[in-house]
Amino acid sequence: MNHTRIAAISLVFLIVVLVLPGFSVPSPANQPNSRRQTSNQQKGQTQAAESIRRLLTTQVEAWNRGDLEGFMDGYWRSPELTFFSGGTISQGWQAALERYQRTYQGTGKEMGHLEFQDLHIDVLDPHAAVVTGKWHLTMSDGKTPHGLFTLILKDMKNGWHIVHDHTSAAD
Amino acid sequence: MNHTRIAAISLVFLIVVLVLPGFSVPSPANQPNSRRQTSNQQKGQTQAAESIRRLLTTQVEAWNRGDLEGFMDGYWRSPELTFFSGGTISQGWQAALERYQRTYQGTGKEMGHLEFQDLHIDVLDPHAAVVTGKWHLTMSDGKTPHGLFTLILKDMKNGWHIVHDHTSAAD
Repeated sequence: MNHTRIAAISLVFLIVVLVLPGFSVPSPANQPNSRRQTSNQQKGQTQAAESIRRLLTTQVEAWNRGDLEGFMDGYWRSPELTFFSGGTISQGWQAALERYQRTYQGTGKEMGHLEFQDLHIDVLDPHAAVVTGKWHLTMSDGKTPHGLFTLILKDMKNGWHIVHDHTSAAD
Repeated sequence: MNHTRIAAISLVFLIVVLVLPGFSVPSPANQPNSRRQTSNQQKGQTQAAESIRRLLTTQVEAWNRGDLEGFMDGYWRSPELTFFSGGTISQGWQAALERYQRTYQGTGKEMGHLEFQDLHIDVLDPHAAVVTGKWHLTMSDGKTPHGLFTLILKDMKNGWHIVHDHTSAAD
């Protein structure tokens, strides 16, 4: 085979590889059911987990200065946000805010001091993650309401936000 | 430039493209924050949602014939399964089974008739999904315990399984 032919075949193959939409070279990462990851994916997951951890820290700081709107910034500001708590569904960001206002800012109510514990962040995808953990409040009368939460987060154009929250209280 | 050089450069570039781990040509599907999907992705999501719906139907059928082990087949048979309920964590498949046995198969207990309602299946990724819904039991004495659940499912080598369950009861 002469050099001209090798050049022509190589160029045609190269063009096919680069132009085919959605083409990706099989790698361990995109084989079905594979748990192996490229270092780029691991880096992406670490960055996502750090962003999410920052979001949760920001939420706790906002709560502990009594800034409920600041706390709510962690949630997707959409009618599609779902908030499950105590067997009832609050549908949408506004309903979730109003539930928090009724529960923690009504007459004789207080927000208390919030802590999150045992956080487990599972980045499922470059744009979706699940976080589980424990919430723990300390009230001025010494009571400590506490329980568990499961959050679904998605990476939106304006950063990660909670799109679903399932919170339950210990009996 | 002579043909030999073109051939050499083309081949080197081709080898780099094919060998680089995780290389994929940008397409709408893997651009950050893109909501556009290929028809293959939509098909995959529909198939995943169907598999998950089947899993949940199989679980309900097992429950309603008193087959708790059959119901538990929907869960990841792993010490890493997490089951949140009533403010407590059951860690692992065995612990989750034992919690169900204590709650529904102890002396004077019954499993009742189970229904899932308002299922919402969100396929986040080819291998991960979140399902939210309502559970509703009808007991022989007419009582109807009910509440909400959030499930995280992953597509394992042996099909979709629940890896995390957060269940709460209405007051």
